[in-house]
Amino acid sequence: MKDQADIHALMQDIGKRAKTAAGKLAFASSSAKQEALEAAADAVWARRGEIMAANAKDLDFGREKGLSAAMMDRLMLDEGRIGGIVEGLRAVAAFPDPVGQVMAEWDRPSGLHIKRVRTPLGVIGVIYESRPNVTADAGALTLKAGNAVILRGGSESFHSSQAIHGCLVEGLRAAGLPEDAIQLVPTRDRAAVTELLHMVEYVDVIVPRGGKGLVGLVQREARVPVFAHLEGIVHVYIDKAADPEKTRRVVINAKTRRTGICGAAECLLVHRDAVALGQSVLDDLMAAGVTVHAGPGLKGTVAATDEDWGREYLDMDIAAKVVDDIDGAIAHINRYSSHHTEAILTEDDEAAQRFFERIDSAILMRNASTQFADGGEFGMGAEIGIATGKLHARGPVGAEQLTSFKYIVEGDGTVRP
Amino acid sequence: MKDQADIHALMQDIGKRAKTAAGKLAFASSSAKQEALEAAADAVWARRGEIMAANAKDLDFGREKGLSAAMMDRLMLDEGRIGGIVEGLRAVAAFPDPVGQVMAEWDRPSGLHIKRVRTPLGVIGVIYESRPNVTADAGALTLKAGNAVILRGGSESFHSSQAIHGCLVEGLRAAGLPEDAIQLVPTRDRAAVTELLHMVEYVDVIVPRGGKGLVGLVQREARVPVFAHLEGIVHVYIDKAADPEKTRRVVINAKTRRTGICGAAECLLVHRDAVALGQSVLDDLMAAGVTVHAGPGLKGTVAATDEDWGREYLDMDIAAKVVDDIDGAIAHINRYSSHHTEAILTEDDEAAQRFFERIDSAILMRNASTQFADGGEFGMGAEIGIATGKLHARGPVGAEQLTSFKYIVEGDGTVRP
Repeated sequence: MKDQADIHALMQDIGKRAKTAAGKLAFASSSAKQEALEAAADAVWARRGEIMAANAKDLDFGREKGLSAAMMDRLMLDEGRIGGIVEGLRAVAAFPDPVGQVMAEWDRPSGLHIKRVRTPLGVIGVIYESRPNVTADAGALTLKAGNAVILRGGSESFHSSQAIHGCLVEGLRAAGLPEDAIQLVPTRDRAAVTELLHMVEYVDVIVPRGGKGLVGLVQREARVPVFAHLEGIVHVYIDKAADPEKTRRVVINAKTRRTGICGAAECLLVHRDAVALGQSVLDDLMAAGVTVHAGPGLKGTVAATDEDWGREYLDMDIAAKVVDDIDGAIAHINRYSSHHTEAILTEDDEAAQRFFERIDSAILMRNASTQFADGGEFGMGAEIGIATGKLHARGPVGAEQLTSFKYIVEGDGTVRP
Repeated sequence: MKDQADIHALMQDIGKRAKTAAGKLAFASSSAKQEALEAAADAVWARRGEIMAANAKDLDFGREKGLSAAMMDRLMLDEGRIGGIVEGLRAVAAFPDPVGQVMAEWDRPSGLHIKRVRTPLGVIGVIYESRPNVTADAGALTLKAGNAVILRGGSESFHSSQAIHGCLVEGLRAAGLPEDAIQLVPTRDRAAVTELLHMVEYVDVIVPRGGKGLVGLVQREARVPVFAHLEGIVHVYIDKAADPEKTRRVVINAKTRRTGICGAAECLLVHRDAVALGQSVLDDLMAAGVTVHAGPGLKGTVAATDEDWGREYLDMDIAAKVVDDIDGAIAHINRYSSHHTEAILTEDDEAAQRFFERIDSAILMRNASTQFADGGEFGMGAEIGIATGKLHARGPVGAEQLTSFKYIVEGDGTVRP
């Protein structure tokens, strides 16, 4: 443990170096960035023994600390998982480079030609928990978009992250890019997180990756903008014009495919004319092992209480409620949702349109499982997280969302009258 | 003057009502918004006598307060200026509605069809100084983008703004839109500004319109995102490949057309191989009455000091400096610029490209006057200001920049494997 002043000086130095690196990355060629990521992938595979040895230290530390089996599993790296990291790096390497893309272009009567062009955001801070693969994923995606990144991994994955970070730096070096483009905070001291959240001079955006505790802390404490979602309180609404077969398939998938992800359904709303269908879906869910917290008019495992509305279970639980009509569903969602993802099951175009227009969530779905709320499934290749803010980045945050833009204006001695 | 608790309650109520109105505006039809703005324009013209009477009260107050002639001029409304307000409202009414526009649309192998669709931001707070026309301009632009707005005008234009606001509300009523869509803070108490800057629950973005004092206060105090620029420290660089005739024309316009706007040039950088041209431009500027603060190797009115680099004169003054090459110009700009607008004068495409890639300002120009840095000149129809942040809105902030987006995902019973 270092004292506060040391941590402050350390983080300021990291910030300054990140900003300097960002200035150079802004005009790094696409091929150099691609080469760096491919070389990093090669290095991760070549140095897998070293990475697994580092991971063994983290696993020992985790056992001593008494981490849960789930936490230990998230932490563990074997050859298969390292292969996944390598594939992830190669996939991001192959993405199109968003920087320099012309977003819009037009001429003006004055004779000016105006272009809006994508540029990097600058410096991104990524704060994450136990999964060591985030070191590679977040480092790669931010580099792709021409940003410098300051990575702050969980203390549990300290050694694994350092080993992976070494491979990323090897890739940067091979491509002639500044090594400070991807920095890993070299201390477990939590004071470093507080410092990172306050570095308005050096950090443009913070992305927290982890549970509600971490995200809430970052949202409360950060003095720089944050791309994040606190919760995924995901609603699925069975409209009176829902198709029974699609409904059954989608609801089961939305709830049970994986229960711990932010796109998992947490509340089922049922139009009062669709209660028979709703009940049969709930019966299916209960048969699959889901605890149904049922409101009046529905039979569940237990009776729902007021606490069940707006609750994120992240488990084999779902709340269920009858609503009078689509507007009742919309009102419930606008009151209790976390503005992440909601779905409507309906064959009625007008009902879908109403649902889409009147609910202000980042992702709205029709006749599809909410578990598709994911950058990869959206075709963004990879995501650094999902955001529920209204500004800049919303929904899955991929390479494109890690960019800003500027205007390029060309004239020919053009003056304003 | 009311006491703090009253102001707090008043502003909370305004915020709540704005949020409720925003929920309805999100799905207001384009034609209703257009009708409201046209009816407001009619009302402003019909009630011009009333507006001028209100303005007379403000002018009396201003005279008593001893406002400068320039301030009194900004405050004054006559029939011509009211005609300008009416035209402005009609122009915004005729704009295309950004809400609902499909920004991107694609299919996925999973069978999903994904659209990214523009939505309103929500509630915008606009804080401005003496010009009463901002009441109409800001009210109209935010409404066009489907947002509710809370207007906080300068105390000098209190009565004029109230009269104009009455006409906007008349327009909303005529179109059946919620009257709370455009609210004007009904007190001159400055505590209301502090309240507005802290209303994270109700306000999505704050836009300050005014001088550096106001913008600085808002940037320091706001707990909600701010779209603004603090200064326009605008650089013009004369490259060695500059065309002399274009250069003379552009520099004179960039400095002298209007000196008080944020796009006015404040510093001229001259390649050392273009000193003869640079000096002749400075001679032209001095002949036009500009005070030139000249660095070594250039003849000006006075010698430049260190204080002159990065200085926003907003007057008939310009700093001038010789640089060794384009990289010297880029380094000077990246050190001293406020990231608003910079221009290069060159016939060399590679030099222009280097300038565009390596400078991170919102607007970069080639062979064109920096006085074009304006939403109207960019073809955005109207602007609520110019932003120098990197997130969301950058450069001129028009109706499109006052929107967010959401994803609409359509399947056919589609589930995730």
